[in-house]
Amino acid sequence: MKIYETRTAPNPRRVRIFLAEKGIDMDYQQVDIQGGENLSDVMRRRNPIAKIPILELDDGTCISESVAICRYFEVLHPDPPLFGTSALEQATIEMWQRQIEFGLMNMIGLCFQHSTGYFKDRMTPVPEFGKVAGENAIAYLDVLNTRLGESPYCAGDVFSIADITALCAIDFARVVKIRPGEQHTHVKDWHARVSARPSAQA
Amino acid sequence: MKIYETRTAPNPRRVRIFLAEKGIDMDYQQVDIQGGENLSDVMRRRNPIAKIPILELDDGTCISESVAICRYFEVLHPDPPLFGTSALEQATIEMWQRQIEFGLMNMIGLCFQHSTGYFKDRMTPVPEFGKVAGENAIAYLDVLNTRLGESPYCAGDVFSIADITALCAIDFARVVKIRPGEQHTHVKDWHARVSARPSAQA
Repeated sequence: MKIYETRTAPNPRRVRIFLAEKGIDMDYQQVDIQGGENLSDVMRRRNPIAKIPILELDDGTCISESVAICRYFEVLHPDPPLFGTSALEQATIEMWQRQIEFGLMNMIGLCFQHSTGYFKDRMTPVPEFGKVAGENAIAYLDVLNTRLGESPYCAGDVFSIADITALCAIDFARVVKIRPGEQHTHVKDWHARVSARPSAQA
Repeated sequence: MKIYETRTAPNPRRVRIFLAEKGIDMDYQQVDIQGGENLSDVMRRRNPIAKIPILELDDGTCISESVAICRYFEVLHPDPPLFGTSALEQATIEMWQRQIEFGLMNMIGLCFQHSTGYFKDRMTPVPEFGKVAGENAIAYLDVLNTRLGESPYCAGDVFSIADITALCAIDFARVVKIRPGEQHTHVKDWHARVSARPSAQA
């Protein structure tokens, strides 16, 4: 099996960190998304919406969406659990994972796409919305800071996929000059801890 | 336990359909989101980002995010499975669920928020982006139509949470005058089938 990805993009990094935490080796094949390599017919057969990463199994079956790829390996390699175990743990992790994804990662991605024009050959950037999306992401850092003042990790006492999403979102946010501020002390402490895990280098 | 929700909003409907498919009875308490009842301190203690639905357990623990609430009940009541069983099924359902959520439901929601000004007391609508979001949703209907020409349900041979998300997104899209077109024959066939399930009335 292998994963088609772009090393500098934030979503593939979520999968690399997840697999590193699980101790799973993987073949990675780089795709030039800026040059539009992902828009080719062969890539669209792997994922109709032409996004990466894509996991290709040995029989040719393809799974796209970072979280879906992570879920596949969570079921096959449940230890350490990164999506939780009990119903309440699984629901709590999914809640934070989604709030961080919609409130932070998605807003940073939209800010990047609409502010920079990086993909202007294939979408309609609305710079005014890019600015709003960036403001939304900054506002979410306040919510996350409160949360990380209550618990060591985003979804509770243990490291989970919610931390992976938050780490990749915050590190990618540098490209749009969004960083945790001085007031986000809990986010900064947490960021130092999760960045020190070997998986953060994956 | 009970669920705080707003009957006319699309996300709570996802949870109601999910629970109906599982045969789970629930107490629902209505929240007036247009009037801002969700923005109160008491609601923010249940969900810091002040969105509904919220599941409140008997001990006061709260789980927000529709999909996280569904996940909670999937673990406790696995039959019928709506998130899949094997690793490949779970990953495939999560892939379609996410693509439909980001490509269709989220875009329709953003189109609604940015075009109508419904929440203009608590966000900055950018009408130009609302238009782009609506165009993105319409474009995703083409992708979904191709998919539903290949398989009876969004994520394969069985009804899943991906179908619930697509149904709630498409039905809500009427408020921004987006509907499947004549060319979306497979979407229309599928829509008639899933709308005929008793759960669609939940």
